[in-house]
Amino acid sequence: MRTGIATVCLSGTLKEKMQACAIAGFDGIEIFEQDLVTSALSPEDVRKMAADLGLTLDLYQPFRDFDSVTEDLLAANLRRAEAKFRLMSRLGMDTILVCTNVATATIDDDDLRAAQLAALAGLAGEHGVKVAYEALAWGKYVNDYEHAHRLVEMVDHPHLGTCLDSFHILSRDWDTAPIEDINADKIFFVQVADAPKLSMDVLSWSRHYRVFPGEGQFELAKFMGHVVRAGYTGPVSLEVFNDVFRQSDVERTAVDAMRSLIWLEEQSAKWLDTALLGATGSAGTQAASRRRYPMELATLPQVAEPAGFNFAEVKAADTGVLEEVLGQLGFEFNGRHRTKDVQLWSMGHARVIINEQAPAAAEPAIAALGFDVDSPVIASARAQQLKAPVVPRKSQANEEVFQGFAAPDSTEIFLCQGNPDGTAAWTAEFGQGLEVPSGARTAVIDHVNLAQPWQHFDEAVLFYTSALALEPQPYAEVASPSGLVRSQVMQTSDRDVRLVLNLAPVIQQDGADAGTAPRKTYQEHIAFAVEDLVATARAARDRGLAFLQIPENYYEDLDARFDLEPGFLDTLRDLNLLYDRDADGEFLHFYTATVGSVFFEMVERRGSYDGYGAPNAPVRHAVQYDHLHQPTK
Amino acid sequence: MRTGIATVCLSGTLKEKMQACAIAGFDGIEIFEQDLVTSALSPEDVRKMAADLGLTLDLYQPFRDFDSVTEDLLAANLRRAEAKFRLMSRLGMDTILVCTNVATATIDDDDLRAAQLAALAGLAGEHGVKVAYEALAWGKYVNDYEHAHRLVEMVDHPHLGTCLDSFHILSRDWDTAPIEDINADKIFFVQVADAPKLSMDVLSWSRHYRVFPGEGQFELAKFMGHVVRAGYTGPVSLEVFNDVFRQSDVERTAVDAMRSLIWLEEQSAKWLDTALLGATGSAGTQAASRRRYPMELATLPQVAEPAGFNFAEVKAADTGVLEEVLGQLGFEFNGRHRTKDVQLWSMGHARVIINEQAPAAAEPAIAALGFDVDSPVIASARAQQLKAPVVPRKSQANEEVFQGFAAPDSTEIFLCQGNPDGTAAWTAEFGQGLEVPSGARTAVIDHVNLAQPWQHFDEAVLFYTSALALEPQPYAEVASPSGLVRSQVMQTSDRDVRLVLNLAPVIQQDGADAGTAPRKTYQEHIAFAVEDLVATARAARDRGLAFLQIPENYYEDLDARFDLEPGFLDTLRDLNLLYDRDADGEFLHFYTATVGSVFFEMVERRGSYDGYGAPNAPVRHAVQYDHLHQPTK
Repeated sequence: MRTGIATVCLSGTLKEKMQACAIAGFDGIEIFEQDLVTSALSPEDVRKMAADLGLTLDLYQPFRDFDSVTEDLLAANLRRAEAKFRLMSRLGMDTILVCTNVATATIDDDDLRAAQLAALAGLAGEHGVKVAYEALAWGKYVNDYEHAHRLVEMVDHPHLGTCLDSFHILSRDWDTAPIEDINADKIFFVQVADAPKLSMDVLSWSRHYRVFPGEGQFELAKFMGHVVRAGYTGPVSLEVFNDVFRQSDVERTAVDAMRSLIWLEEQSAKWLDTALLGATGSAGTQAASRRRYPMELATLPQVAEPAGFNFAEVKAADTGVLEEVLGQLGFEFNGRHRTKDVQLWSMGHARVIINEQAPAAAEPAIAALGFDVDSPVIASARAQQLKAPVVPRKSQANEEVFQGFAAPDSTEIFLCQGNPDGTAAWTAEFGQGLEVPSGARTAVIDHVNLAQPWQHFDEAVLFYTSALALEPQPYAEVASPSGLVRSQVMQTSDRDVRLVLNLAPVIQQDGADAGTAPRKTYQEHIAFAVEDLVATARAARDRGLAFLQIPENYYEDLDARFDLEPGFLDTLRDLNLLYDRDADGEFLHFYTATVGSVFFEMVERRGSYDGYGAPNAPVRHAVQYDHLHQPTK
Repeated sequence: MRTGIATVCLSGTLKEKMQACAIAGFDGIEIFEQDLVTSALSPEDVRKMAADLGLTLDLYQPFRDFDSVTEDLLAANLRRAEAKFRLMSRLGMDTILVCTNVATATIDDDDLRAAQLAALAGLAGEHGVKVAYEALAWGKYVNDYEHAHRLVEMVDHPHLGTCLDSFHILSRDWDTAPIEDINADKIFFVQVADAPKLSMDVLSWSRHYRVFPGEGQFELAKFMGHVVRAGYTGPVSLEVFNDVFRQSDVERTAVDAMRSLIWLEEQSAKWLDTALLGATGSAGTQAASRRRYPMELATLPQVAEPAGFNFAEVKAADTGVLEEVLGQLGFEFNGRHRTKDVQLWSMGHARVIINEQAPAAAEPAIAALGFDVDSPVIASARAQQLKAPVVPRKSQANEEVFQGFAAPDSTEIFLCQGNPDGTAAWTAEFGQGLEVPSGARTAVIDHVNLAQPWQHFDEAVLFYTSALALEPQPYAEVASPSGLVRSQVMQTSDRDVRLVLNLAPVIQQDGADAGTAPRKTYQEHIAFAVEDLVATARAARDRGLAFLQIPENYYEDLDARFDLEPGFLDTLRDLNLLYDRDADGEFLHFYTATVGSVFFEMVERRGSYDGYGAPNAPVRHAVQYDHLHQPTK
């Protein structure tokens, strides 16, 4: 699959954009007109730079408001088009995107439109230019790709073809199957964009909220499957208008974009395999059938969903309080590593590494997560093909080597070989080896909650989707004293891995310059699941644990909502436990006070409760906020 | 008018919110349930704190999903309601908001609903509680205030009345005139919120985009006029769910909120005056008629729109480059102030003060604007009643005293007495007095463009609307290499004052901590209008001015779009001029290089051109970005 990207997806100057696209590994780019008009580079400079960078210049865009106009306007539009054709010749480009008219269309007549497009195609032919005609979702008279293509067929000119853009098609819920009926020679260009499903006017949706494939909710693999079956072999190019990407680091966004196409390519191959032979066809037969189509689709090393958390790692300069809290929670100290300054703590199969190798002033923070995968080597190869930055873990001879890479928020992700019984071989490198405490064999890491920088939130969703096969769930918004927290669960289908990505607001202090650091108001946490939360909480209290203190008002509201047994309510109140209930089951949990930027949660899931106690999250946020802003208390 | 605000409008803890509301001068508050549930304050603490702060507790809210349910659910709902009624008794509160059912309604039957509401009202009566029933815009069966009120009338119980919320009514375009037909005794509460007109689902619109009155596009004065004419005398209370306000400084947001109610009160009085007697009725007669209604509406000192800019002030530690640039533009140095370290420069009636009293390392920046008003004293009194922070300008005996206050972005705004001929008396305090250069008598300040911090953008719109009678125009979004720039024009009806508020993005640097300062990528500017821009540009070039260099690509695109005379195009290119044209006229302009965070623009308006060359803004942004990121060039 030939990969492309429109320059409008990225921040920076045209030069910065082109360099970033080349570094990220794109085959070609679309030149968004405004990026050229505002650039000090001449068309010849751009042509040379693209050649030097190994980028093809695939599409000049957009040429707007051409068709369905009066005679006068047509003459002016042809003049305008010819100027652009001449410019394209200097750029060495041969394809221009002409989108259906929005602003100046006054005549709704397909014959007239066809005649006007024929005039344009004729002029384009004289300049060796191909016109790719695209139906905008909000085109005044033409807003459906099948309608646009009927016009292309009416004109029947070698220099006029169709441009398919997934956003304009899927935002309107147009059926994508008829794409297969289009003659491949007449598909001049294919643009892809994903988007969250939003109920707003389609123009605003398109201009601000598009995302890269895998970051939204469109069925892009299916769209691409139909494109491939049509016989298309040209570039598959990203055109994503997104307010955040436009103000994010250009090189990093380009890598995120490239990752989305690599992932889409694999997903499209999978869709085709299944569509062709059903889920039961052997992989070999499926791939063989897929090869009937001229577009070559690369696939990635296959990985299954991770089977669970292998460990979580917290890093600190002063680890004293962390050790104390883990001990109070019931974790056992399993010894120090034989060569490194790290400690192992465990409770059942929940393992926490305390890494002492933090810079002097660093507060305790979550530094790394280990996941159990079938084959760490294959999973690592996949992640690397998806352009995940590798994080080498130093190791001595005879020690297990972890394959690791950095997530978008800088958390290190390690791929581990877990044992089927939930133990881990590497623990033998600590102390005398690991004794599982008898009282809490079943304890596991239930979920981990990571704060994401706002400019890398969508990137993180795609990262965990593509590299770790976690599936994004519909996101929730939770109120906190410093604003709404966007909370996105990523999980495996059996829920053995649950990761919660939180986009947390920060209060902008009055009087502070826009440039100064906002105060940090959000923390990350690791949640452990146990069988008997009440017993765990009692034992922790006996050991002196500082629980997050839950307000009495909460328990009164809980009682109003759930009509709980008085004895049970007293137990919750007494132990600072939180409670939730839904049709599937019940959820009990408590939090520790925060250490640095990390705190811990203990949870008990009863029945098939599948959530995270979201109704209780505002309480947690409010109490933590209160602590953070009254440090003298 | 009794003023109120729901705690959900603000950031922080319940305690912080209550304190901020008291400081801002609200009469009362609505307790948003979640703020109480998450608070460590007991209901008795809240009651005492409110009393101590002089705040009434006007409404407990929300009580959701009560009506249209099955028998079983009704019993549970009544139990839940009774728990809240008991809680309200501890809080000393007597009114609860019950909104129409969204989630659990299964039976669409007004008789059943009335019976269920009657049961609730009966129970409420036993606890001395009044139920204010509100139609949510997205209520499952009841989403129209007239429908909700019909149910209230059917029940006919002294403890059941109607709650009117401007958002739920105006977002659905319900007619507001029938409000006057509601018996005032049956209007238990009135909530107000403004909003920009957005085409999205009404729930998302409501939960994220509400703004304070005067910051959106709803006809709130008319809504309030009907409420007043109905005879309502209770609190008028803000209920604004806004993502930005929820993460802004709580005290500042509370002041913004209070300002919006003070302004709304005045606007409502004006609407009533006009509605009663037409625009031609004398002010005295109008006000007398208004007094027929029981709600007392305070008005503000009246001011007319400012007649023009009196001056603009730029502050710098090192003023050398500023002086050079103004000189090159054709400004004359009119001397130093006789007692202060400030210089006066002028060109016709465009006056620029260079203030040398900046801290040592401060780069040149726009510090203050002066506006010509009829009566500085009255305008200042109005601004102070609108809670604008006063900025005293020190002065010696025999010097003019400026009345000033700080705008939300900290720019100082001074109210000046201009002379009808465009001169200003205070200029006599400089040098030998001011000689207007003969060549450019007609030069004026055309507009000033100020960058706004994102968390104070809506506040700024209301500030200039209410304190200076500027009118917000529909906003535009302009592409820049660091993201979309939101551009909001505020102007007088005759365009003698044009202020452009820009919300500029900043690129978050990769690898930088969320806490570190983003690089500053946006500048502010002052634009001067002249009669002959080409002559002005030629003279400036002869004096050695560093123009912002416009790319050749721009001129080629300009030619493709406008088919300009070759000679004229050459002139534009030669002088780095930008050009725009629309149905009203033409616009020529050029920019200087940036000095510190400020640059200057010279413009010529031909015909009735009323814009700002928005199609050219991306060029300006791109070139400035390029300069900023390649400082070695």
